[in-house]
Amino acid sequence: MKLVVINPNTTDEMTAVIATAARSVAPSGAEVVAVTSSMGPASIESHYDEALAVPGVLDAIAAHPDADGYLLACFGDPGLDAARELAAAPVLGIAEAAMHLAAPLGRGFSVVTTLSRTIGRAHDLVGHYGFGRQCLGIHACEIPVLELESRPDTADVLAKACAEALVADGSDAIVLGCAGMADLARRMSAEIGAPVIDGVAAGVGMLAAMAAMGLRTGTSSGEFARPPAKTYSGVLGGFGLGGGMPSRSSDQH
Amino acid sequence: MKLVVINPNTTDEMTAVIATAARSVAPSGAEVVAVTSSMGPASIESHYDEALAVPGVLDAIAAHPDADGYLLACFGDPGLDAARELAAAPVLGIAEAAMHLAAPLGRGFSVVTTLSRTIGRAHDLVGHYGFGRQCLGIHACEIPVLELESRPDTADVLAKACAEALVADGSDAIVLGCAGMADLARRMSAEIGAPVIDGVAAGVGMLAAMAAMGLRTGTSSGEFARPPAKTYSGVLGGFGLGGGMPSRSSDQH
Amino acid sequence: MKLVVINPNTTDEMTAVIATAARSVAPSGAEVVAVTSSMGPASIESHYDEALAVPGVLDAIAAHPDADGYLLACFGDPGLDAARELAAAPVLGIAEAAMHLAAPLGRGFSVVTTLSRTIGRAHDLVGHYGFGRQCLGIHACEIPVLELESRPDTADVLAKACAEALVADGSDAIVLGCAGMADLARRMSAEIGAPVIDGVAAGVGMLAAMAAMGLRTGTSSGEFARPPAKTYSGVLGGFGLGGGMPSRSSDQH
Amino acid sequence: MKLVVINPNTTDEMTAVIATAARSVAPSGAEVVAVTSSMGPASIESHYDEALAVPGVLDAIAAHPDADGYLLACFGDPGLDAARELAAAPVLGIAEAAMHLAAPLGRGFSVVTTLSRTIGRAHDLVGHYGFGRQCLGIHACEIPVLELESRPDTADVLAKACAEALVADGSDAIVLGCAGMADLARRMSAEIGAPVIDGVAAGVGMLAAMAAMGLRTGTSSGEFARPPAKTYSGVLGGFGLGGGMPSRSSDQH
Amino acid sequence: MKLVVINPNTTDEMTAVIATAARSVAPSGAEVVAVTSSMGPASIESHYDEALAVPGVLDAIAAHPDADGYLLACFGDPGLDAARELAAAPVLGIAEAAMHLAAPLGRGFSVVTTLSRTIGRAHDLVGHYGFGRQCLGIHACEIPVLELESRPDTADVLAKACAEALVADGSDAIVLGCAGMADLARRMSAEIGAPVIDGVAAGVGMLAAMAAMGLRTGTSSGEFARPPAKTYSGVLGGFGLGGGMPSRSSDQH
Amino acid sequence: MKLVVINPNTTDEMTAVIATAARSVAPSGAEVVAVTSSMGPASIESHYDEALAVPGVLDAIAAHPDADGYLLACFGDPGLDAARELAAAPVLGIAEAAMHLAAPLGRGFSVVTTLSRTIGRAHDLVGHYGFGRQCLGIHACEIPVLELESRPDTADVLAKACAEALVADGSDAIVLGCAGMADLARRMSAEIGAPVIDGVAAGVGMLAAMAAMGLRTGTSSGEFARPPAKTYSGVLGGFGLGGGMPSRSSDQH
Repeated sequence: MKLVVINPNTTDEMTAVIATAARSVAPSGAEVVAVTSSMGPASIESHYDEALAVPGVLDAIAAHPDADGYLLACFGDPGLDAARELAAAPVLGIAEAAMHLAAPLGRGFSVVTTLSRTIGRAHDLVGHYGFGRQCLGIHACEIPVLELESRPDTADVLAKACAEALVADGSDAIVLGCAGMADLARRMSAEIGAPVIDGVAAGVGMLAAMAAMGLRTGTSSGEFARPPAKTYSGVLGGFGLGGGMPSRSSDQH
Repeated sequence: MKLVVINPNTTDEMTAVIATAARSVAPSGAEVVAVTSSMGPASIESHYDEALAVPGVLDAIAAHPDADGYLLACFGDPGLDAARELAAAPVLGIAEAAMHLAAPLGRGFSVVTTLSRTIGRAHDLVGHYGFGRQCLGIHACEIPVLELESRPDTADVLAKACAEALVADGSDAIVLGCAGMADLARRMSAEIGAPVIDGVAAGVGMLAAMAAMGLRTGTSSGEFARPPAKTYSGVLGGFGLGGGMPSRSSDQH
Repeated sequence: MKLVVINPNTTDEMTAVIATAARSVAPSGAEVVAVTSSMGPASIESHYDEALAVPGVLDAIAAHPDADGYLLACFGDPGLDAARELAAAPVLGIAEAAMHLAAPLGRGFSVVTTLSRTIGRAHDLVGHYGFGRQCLGIHACEIPVLELESRPDTADVLAKACAEALVADGSDAIVLGCAGMADLARRMSAEIGAPVIDGVAAGVGMLAAMAAMGLRTGTSSGEFARPPAKTYSGVLGGFGLGGGMPSRSSDQH
Repeated sequence: MKLVVINPNTTDEMTAVIATAARSVAPSGAEVVAVTSSMGPASIESHYDEALAVPGVLDAIAAHPDADGYLLACFGDPGLDAARELAAAPVLGIAEAAMHLAAPLGRGFSVVTTLSRTIGRAHDLVGHYGFGRQCLGIHACEIPVLELESRPDTADVLAKACAEALVADGSDAIVLGCAGMADLARRMSAEIGAPVIDGVAAGVGMLAAMAAMGLRTGTSSGEFARPPAKTYSGVLGGFGLGGGMPSRSSDQH
Repeated sequence: MKLVVINPNTTDEMTAVIATAARSVAPSGAEVVAVTSSMGPASIESHYDEALAVPGVLDAIAAHPDADGYLLACFGDPGLDAARELAAAPVLGIAEAAMHLAAPLGRGFSVVTTLSRTIGRAHDLVGHYGFGRQCLGIHACEIPVLELESRPDTADVLAKACAEALVADGSDAIVLGCAGMADLARRMSAEIGAPVIDGVAAGVGMLAAMAAMGLRTGTSSGEFARPPAKTYSGVLGGFGLGGGMPSRSSDQH
Repeated sequence: MKLVVINPNTTDEMTAVIATAARSVAPSGAEVVAVTSSMGPASIESHYDEALAVPGVLDAIAAHPDADGYLLACFGDPGLDAARELAAAPVLGIAEAAMHLAAPLGRGFSVVTTLSRTIGRAHDLVGHYGFGRQCLGIHACEIPVLELESRPDTADVLAKACAEALVADGSDAIVLGCAGMADLARRMSAEIGAPVIDGVAAGVGMLAAMAAMGLRTGTSSGEFARPPAKTYSGVLGGFGLGGGMPSRSSDQH
């Protein structure tokens, strides 16, 4: 079983965090390939960043065509529908995966994310995936993505935000709203005494289950069939599917 | 990792089917304990049957207190909330698990179940879990639960129902609506050319993911904390939690 | 007209409170039969208690087959769908009935219940019955069910909770969230100056209306037709419908 | 107990039908006063008719200030919120009442109304009252309101529409979508073998329950408090509440 | 292009405010005809007022049959559906128009209206038009409609309410909840630093767009076709459409 | 007033169609600048195409910083949220604009689009914008985007699809689901006798209204404030906002 975990931003250090989290829960025998995006933003903290992270996500999928599952390791789940058209194997976003595992763990969960300007996107995803009843609140700890690893007080600030969310929302679980928090889930859980779900681990677990069951994205409605071939131009000229999409540099860890 | 899969009806033959399906996808090293309910209906085909299957489910959980996860292998997910209060480890129902894995596999899924009188319950579960957008239809193949294994035409009838549901609903995947269909998922998928999700396998996969992540049902809102001790009487007198709940006979396969 | 009001717990004192409330609003000529459950929990304060109250509810219905209506006098409406399959006459739960009468009395209502751990169940019922717009909040007074009658400050605590709910939610009416509060509705209403709805009285009123109109549960979709006969085993062996369901002891007041 | 049943159109013959239906289910000792609107349309078959029926409804309420409950006997529930502000006693519309009694009678109900152009209004009411899950379809028999009594084939046409709706929607009950059908509910039920709910009878039953419980519209949020006094002018000059609203002619049956 | 803007109350001074706001944004060449209602309440501050404003609205439309669009300048959008049946050209309410323009301006908007008793109606309109996700709160400044122009502190009180709503709701825009605030939108926007939408201007803009595109209310479902002719009686006798509806006095500014 | 209409694909012929439609309804004095995307797919017929059209949309906005409004002329509204962060003036998508103008024209509308594989995206937009009640169906005419102009039978096929949708859905209006159909709206309307809404014209009308009112995207919640500056790399290196985003070639018509 080969699972490809894609960091949609271009920061290798964050890919390393993600890779460790993914491997810590992968079933024995599963290979986890962690990929850093080859283009776009160094971190994703706006709709603008997220939109421009999508080409790198699609490029990474095209560069690793033989996986049994793909995980998009950014809480905005950038390019998820496009990725499903492109990939032969199932694709999950970490927001999606985290919510699917959090929902059965109690009455409802709270999301704790990085900057408050990303709350809107999280709210849209909650609605789209169908967790409007279970998601009881979305909160920001106001630490920028790339400072999560470097700031000495990250764990303290995040634990405080998680504990406060639990009380404010009356929730039973916390969903971490950024792939850069993946290494903190167990520590947060121990500190607040409640389940804390990291989407990277959740996504690996769900993809492993799908792979064991032999499941792939369905194409019978036609929506997720391979996209029609056509001409692409400009700096995105290489994305035209007709003549085969050339891969660009893709770091593997 | 020890996963307890409970057949909420009292029919051992069906437990055997469930056990095989569960073990076929369990990660290496995971122990699957399959339990037949010690009381109640021989099959579950009505709200009445389902309600009266719940004591047996709770008894089975109490008899196996040391698991890392519990799966309720009936598509009505009988007693799920009560089970979550009682169990220390996470609990999933197979309807719940199947829908969580089916949702990310396309635009929407159809459910194909046994008797049409159970469609209402499935509809309620779809709404409760939040899959109202993704579940595009619920259909019955009109084979009673205990005839699934014995009828020679089960696979043909079910495949026809699945294929028709796919077209009628414009769906991308099929969810099988009975634990007794667990052995048919891969064959159905091959016949109709679309992903077919069995909730038993889906539940094992999700529980394995939860166990790998160290997740348990949250109790911070209080709703899923251990139930208050109190007097129980009549034929259910043994269920009082105050003095410790005595286990009754529980078959293991 | 004969209405059977079932106390789903085994506490006779509470049945007496319920019976009085029911009779105070029953139309002249209507007979109210109040039944204490013959098995299960002494009070219902968790999903576990509620699930295990259902067999007693079904037993009580089977023991009184000739009624014109059945009322399940616990705010969790335990076993409602199963009861509808089993009974020839209409069946209501008191949560359901209270909400149906409260909704037309203003913009929205608040629910005030016993322990906060039961709020989740009330929330689910609100959603299931369709009162998500009208139910503006669910609150707990934190008095256990069996202390409602014995505590000298119950009326004061409850009145305070009702008054606060009215303000906090901007609601026009209060729904009492426990059958054990049935005797307090008029007093609460007088104290807070707003309509206070007790589900026992509401249920009797609605069942009387249905009986006057000759209405019964519909069976045309098949969902609420008589359950299929089958073998039941273990301590629930007596619930098999095939050979006629033997009644167990059922107190009548 | 005095219940005022208002026919919002100006056709006395229809008021007579409504009065009979109301009295057939009123509890013994209850007085039913049936009132024909003193102004506006002879029948209500459009948004325009309905809007212009409201002044007559409000006039009828003002003319009968001492009732224990008011029922608006048109399936569009015209002027319901305004009536609640004006009346001291509870006010129900027959669409509202019928749906409240139909919802607990099965999985879902179908509405069968007169002209298809009124389906939109019924759809809005279903959504507003919260019965989107339970109302499985709205159908028209295409008989104009005032022909319901005169056409010899009304019962046949309506029975056919009801039977077809039951099958098409998979519903368990039928709600009749016009007060002019009030005399046909029991006959329809006998013909189609399913519960058929007439809103006039349903409304009388619910108002009787509210009266027995001493319930009135709540005013704590302020929305349904008495409207502020102010100047009214033109042909509606008499509706100003400041100086007392003069009653106009109101027929009583 | 001729747009008829109807003030549903009978206060000419308010019509003048509305007319100015409408003309300030009308495209060059567009004629704005502002009409004061000929009957009913001097201001609209309750369901009762609003219901009784509808005949005047319909009368105004009948009196100006040749417009390219009609705007109902009261935030309750009184008589909107009836007006659409009656008018050949499109009809908008100012609540509707304001919300349609506010929704695309950010994550969500807050409504600031006059008296808190009108919040319920605004809430219903939000739900009916589909803006439940975007409308993040409805607030009252507690200034009666007819005091908006006369009170010296109106702008200050309203600005404070708008600023507080923005923060309390986390919204990106403010919708003004009364036509009498139409002259204050730009000033409010400058004071709070956020877009403030007046429904009168929004409605003129949307109607101008519809007129430029040649759009009219659709009648293919039949719901908004011309109402059937029939007898009207009492003081509303003139509203019968069969013999042509006589116009009453209608002030034009 | 300067409105920038962006064709998110790279096909100049389609930009010309869009420009004509936009100018035909623009108010006198308004300048319409039509821009062809400088990069990405020649047409947009999949999630993949749409995702990869977004960089070109953002580039076009950056290249025209001084507009009073931006319109994204593809029915998937690609990059709308990102565009709102980037642009100082309001931004609309044509799906969004078309639905906002269609909703007030009747009970409900149908969407008729190009290929059926794009129906899913349209469905998501309907839900996101809040038109789930009003959108009664989404249909495909199965003509690829770039064949709309070249096929001789486009108008006939489209008219047939529109007429059938009107009947099948019981709708009052048609929304055209592709910018390439912009020139056909009036002809379709004449053929089917119902309002037909082209999103390009609708968007120009709404933007003109917003410009006349001085409205801009609100930033008070922070979500739509200017994105944070950061490093971009790879072929998207030019999109980093920190050092000013260099414009690439952008055709203007």
